[in-house]
Amino acid sequence: MNQVAVRNIHRAEAGVIETLGRLGVATVHEAQGRTGLMQPYMRPVWRGARIAGSAVTALCHPGDNWMIHVAIEQCAEGDILVVAPTSACDTGYFGELLATSLQAHGVQGLIIEAGVRDVRDLTAMRFPVWSRYVSAQGTVKETLGSVNVPIVCAGMLVNPGDLIVADDDGVCVVAREQAQVVLDGSIEREKKEAAVRARLKAGELGLDIYDMRERLAAKGLKYRDAGND
Amino acid sequence: MNQVAVRNIHRAEAGVIETLGRLGVATVHEAQGRTGLMQPYMRPVWRGARIAGSAVTALCHPGDNWMIHVAIEQCAEGDILVVAPTSACDTGYFGELLATSLQAHGVQGLIIEAGVRDVRDLTAMRFPVWSRYVSAQGTVKETLGSVNVPIVCAGMLVNPGDLIVADDDGVCVVAREQAQVVLDGSIEREKKEAAVRARLKAGELGLDIYDMRERLAAKGLKYRDAGND
Amino acid sequence: MNQVAVRNIHRAEAGVIETLGRLGVATVHEAQGRTGLMQPYMRPVWRGARIAGSAVTALCHPGDNWMIHVAIEQCAEGDILVVAPTSACDTGYFGELLATSLQAHGVQGLIIEAGVRDVRDLTAMRFPVWSRYVSAQGTVKETLGSVNVPIVCAGMLVNPGDLIVADDDGVCVVAREQAQVVLDGSIEREKKEAAVRARLKAGELGLDIYDMRERLAAKGLKYRDAGND
Amino acid sequence: MNQVAVRNIHRAEAGVIETLGRLGVATVHEAQGRTGLMQPYMRPVWRGARIAGSAVTALCHPGDNWMIHVAIEQCAEGDILVVAPTSACDTGYFGELLATSLQAHGVQGLIIEAGVRDVRDLTAMRFPVWSRYVSAQGTVKETLGSVNVPIVCAGMLVNPGDLIVADDDGVCVVAREQAQVVLDGSIEREKKEAAVRARLKAGELGLDIYDMRERLAAKGLKYRDAGND
Amino acid sequence: MNQVAVRNIHRAEAGVIETLGRLGVATVHEAQGRTGLMQPYMRPVWRGARIAGSAVTALCHPGDNWMIHVAIEQCAEGDILVVAPTSACDTGYFGELLATSLQAHGVQGLIIEAGVRDVRDLTAMRFPVWSRYVSAQGTVKETLGSVNVPIVCAGMLVNPGDLIVADDDGVCVVAREQAQVVLDGSIEREKKEAAVRARLKAGELGLDIYDMRERLAAKGLKYRDAGND
Amino acid sequence: MNQVAVRNIHRAEAGVIETLGRLGVATVHEAQGRTGLMQPYMRPVWRGARIAGSAVTALCHPGDNWMIHVAIEQCAEGDILVVAPTSACDTGYFGELLATSLQAHGVQGLIIEAGVRDVRDLTAMRFPVWSRYVSAQGTVKETLGSVNVPIVCAGMLVNPGDLIVADDDGVCVVAREQAQVVLDGSIEREKKEAAVRARLKAGELGLDIYDMRERLAAKGLKYRDAGND
Repeated sequence: MNQVAVRNIHRAEAGVIETLGRLGVATVHEAQGRTGLMQPYMRPVWRGARIAGSAVTALCHPGDNWMIHVAIEQCAEGDILVVAPTSACDTGYFGELLATSLQAHGVQGLIIEAGVRDVRDLTAMRFPVWSRYVSAQGTVKETLGSVNVPIVCAGMLVNPGDLIVADDDGVCVVAREQAQVVLDGSIEREKKEAAVRARLKAGELGLDIYDMRERLAAKGLKYRDAGND
Repeated sequence: MNQVAVRNIHRAEAGVIETLGRLGVATVHEAQGRTGLMQPYMRPVWRGARIAGSAVTALCHPGDNWMIHVAIEQCAEGDILVVAPTSACDTGYFGELLATSLQAHGVQGLIIEAGVRDVRDLTAMRFPVWSRYVSAQGTVKETLGSVNVPIVCAGMLVNPGDLIVADDDGVCVVAREQAQVVLDGSIEREKKEAAVRARLKAGELGLDIYDMRERLAAKGLKYRDAGND
Repeated sequence: MNQVAVRNIHRAEAGVIETLGRLGVATVHEAQGRTGLMQPYMRPVWRGARIAGSAVTALCHPGDNWMIHVAIEQCAEGDILVVAPTSACDTGYFGELLATSLQAHGVQGLIIEAGVRDVRDLTAMRFPVWSRYVSAQGTVKETLGSVNVPIVCAGMLVNPGDLIVADDDGVCVVAREQAQVVLDGSIEREKKEAAVRARLKAGELGLDIYDMRERLAAKGLKYRDAGND
Repeated sequence: MNQVAVRNIHRAEAGVIETLGRLGVATVHEAQGRTGLMQPYMRPVWRGARIAGSAVTALCHPGDNWMIHVAIEQCAEGDILVVAPTSACDTGYFGELLATSLQAHGVQGLIIEAGVRDVRDLTAMRFPVWSRYVSAQGTVKETLGSVNVPIVCAGMLVNPGDLIVADDDGVCVVAREQAQVVLDGSIEREKKEAAVRARLKAGELGLDIYDMRERLAAKGLKYRDAGND
Repeated sequence: MNQVAVRNIHRAEAGVIETLGRLGVATVHEAQGRTGLMQPYMRPVWRGARIAGSAVTALCHPGDNWMIHVAIEQCAEGDILVVAPTSACDTGYFGELLATSLQAHGVQGLIIEAGVRDVRDLTAMRFPVWSRYVSAQGTVKETLGSVNVPIVCAGMLVNPGDLIVADDDGVCVVAREQAQVVLDGSIEREKKEAAVRARLKAGELGLDIYDMRERLAAKGLKYRDAGND
Repeated sequence: MNQVAVRNIHRAEAGVIETLGRLGVATVHEAQGRTGLMQPYMRPVWRGARIAGSAVTALCHPGDNWMIHVAIEQCAEGDILVVAPTSACDTGYFGELLATSLQAHGVQGLIIEAGVRDVRDLTAMRFPVWSRYVSAQGTVKETLGSVNVPIVCAGMLVNPGDLIVADDDGVCVVAREQAQVVLDGSIEREKKEAAVRARLKAGELGLDIYDMRERLAAKGLKYRDAGND
């Protein structure tokens, strides 16, 4: 029922992708109404990468990484491979050889709700990976899954061609159709934050910048001094 | 019932604080009878910080960081902000903007039993944070909590003005009234350890340094050689 | 019933140990039929170490590190100390003083299914540790366990004298009797991977290198193009 | 961006729903190619219920159950309410009062990836609930979410009107458009299992019923007798 | 530093205790401003018990249940024993023999943030226990803790003599000084809920009973009909 | 390397097995020096079963239950099947059909460090199962494992023919060679406990029965009365 590999998926515009990547996960996630964030157990294998790209998706059987090979052929320059197992699995689906293959095809990174291995090599290659687990446990290649079908990865729906933004804060998914709207919202948010940042740096309080005092009092917050204890 | 913000809390003496910070979590925790250590899931966002300071506490609703704004106003130079939600929550309560505000007021760091975001920025700013989660998921500002009331954070009771010591090993709480006693015990412990360290470095065994052989035998430990297997 | 310390255990040949260490966890684990890997929650305290050595084992009571002292005396140059509690425990069994002692006796590293502390010092000393937890919580020395008996550590059986290989991917156990066979298999695997790596780097697909297309079709994989959505 | 409540959703045919409910989660999940199963942490509050119905979905803020009230109005006789928070939350969103309301409107049960309370009452009322947590921690009603939009609940995409099948094994989602196909497959599977069951009961082995011996041998399985150990 | 057993603690009034027990955890927790609830991992060993009583507290070393014996002597008729380890521990601190002793002294139940064993016997004896784990793993009696000092159990501060309310929803702590206020609030809440319950049972919606429609609209909730999909 | 099925394993004496089963997990575990207990996450699918028998072991690939079919043929009347995956997996390896087959061959129960399904049927059949997970997620039959080799299940080494004792407290493993010694120790322990139980029931304190007061005082326990707070 899910044994299909879809070719020639639609992707977002390159310019939109690039700008969202520069803005980062927290900003993009806020700009789309605090949605799209994968579960916080998705952690970077190494710190410091910040990428954005179109999702090529792979749905795999537990302990079976066969579909990753099928997916690589469907990846274009700049894409991000997103892999989810049909049920929870901590096995090491991915390592340095597959990263070599992805890099050879210009793929920017991997998002996988399972385990990866060859951490030392992935770090040395500067190939960005966000995974749920690190594990050297190997996989088999026996059971079909699908490529470029909608998948749920770490709690979020990912359609092929959706935008993935990933950095040290985690991974955020932006629906392809909403990419431009989210971009506009992100840029606006960034501007506002720049203004707030300058005021906070100068010692102003959020209480005053955001006019919170009245609302706090209305909700019933009382101030008192510490006693002589 | 908990909707209060307490001003002008009592703090420990600056000299005591500074020395405890230099001694570090493991020593201080041992010196106060192996108590005060927060749950080990409290991890530094970046490695290498070692801080100590007086606790300003904030009790927040799940997914709501409003009280952090209220708490910042109550922070003095050198303080450490300690935040706990009323029930478990992995949301990202805190990021680079709030860190900017805390730094502007001379706050040394943040301890939070929830999530934080802007990991890349927090690291670049060298603002020390110990948290339970990393998550970009945003919060609201809708429900009151309290500031500078006793809270339980990661399994430990923290009274406002208690000493917080934090480093790569985790976070330890020292009751304000016991700070001097714990300091004395910590210094004594450090001296003893220095002597033991020199002997261990020279190859002596703990078995001999601590006179364990007799007690082990009395408890029934037997030695035998490996067989020919 | 378990209160014994076994002396003069049998160890694998130094040459075999050294080569396995260079090959690393993922390769060795694959070469022995995807077995021997400890649970992925065993993480290095600091990144970048890669060690191999003969296991000296210690079985400890929860919250009691007494047997580590007994075990150190049984360690020879190049050994790796492997510690497991009789039931799950996150306490900090091990820190900088014990690491100093192990280093003084030429022990290469520690594998422990419990907590460790003094992370900053262990990192500065470059003493490699793989643990389940980081925790400053101290232990007592009250209850006997055993040294150099078979133990289960992080899901794997470890017999004294078994080979331990550990790197950023985790920890793998090789039975002493199988060390030479696993070594031969590992070297063969490494050669094959080198050939595959070169082809992947040149842009060839795993689908072609491993002749997967026919088998995928036989299992029923269908290709189709994305629609006009 | 997600602040919408959708009315008059499309539902599957009553006859299909009823039969799928009788067949149960394991059969339905297998019949749709081993897909659709929510994470196994979704557990029934009390044992023995087996329900099927059309999903009315609610997406809630962490610690905020306001949208459940909005959702109840959109529920029809026989529906199942499916609730997910935008980020992980163990708070008690639901208890006996809301169950009373749902029962009054003929709703069959609740699926919620968060906490519920009033376990004793829910059990006495025989109102079926599958939840991730049991917790008495209360929620607020401050932040909008959405009703009858696609949500991800416990790792599975749920579109409004999809079929939910739930029993002691967990919760399975069937896309509305596939309900008839899955029903046919489930009935076929049930027939085959009945035949196998009779043979197993008579003592025949799966090895023979499924003709496994030859394939096991081909894959390399060897039989040997236990030695004299 | 913590090696003390406190005798003759102050307890709340018997009438207050009894009524709070009848009202149950969810009501009491709400009535004191949604505070006091222990972590939801505290689960009853058997379902159906509902108790309230004054807390006698015991602080134990990991894997060491010695202080429970000391605590039993301090228990009066109707009390509830509350036990916490100084660091997380899943060992079985408590079983049928200790339950026999507690029952002989009229103790109503046990709350323990660790493991218990003899589940079959505890169930048969109808001795109520809320624990974090079930485990047969035994403990030692080697290290002192304290009895009737303030402890943190499952995330909540418990002072000796505080009220404990426990049922199938979990465990709630009420500070002794606030018992009467919380009781009054609980009774008021119960009355209000009775009125709401009757209206919900008759089919009225929470949206109307709580006048939510206007506030939802003001916050921006839009209604629309499902399309022809 | 592990692809073997071993026939005609050695088993313990029927009389020993029967008596150990009657004594139960907690007693047997204590009698063998507090060893042998599987991790506490191994829970009975239904409450009240208490079984003992010889272990037939199966080592399976993640998400692949093929070896269970091979193992069933090796089971004799009264045996207990023990299944472990080579890496952690929550998939449903076992359900009502396999239970029917095991019951037809007189197998007493199943111990599995993975998931099971058909909970309702297993309960109705009174077929005892201890598992780590409940999950309807199906498995494949593609990859060989082994039958009747030593395995690690839930943290414990299980050799084929070892004794398994399981009840509501969990699962305990007794090495076949130690069965008689453990039996003797268990019976002795049971006698002692009977005497203690009678005294506890009569209101005597453990403090007196076990002569703890002097040792507590020697270790430094102080008693004091609660103040006027």
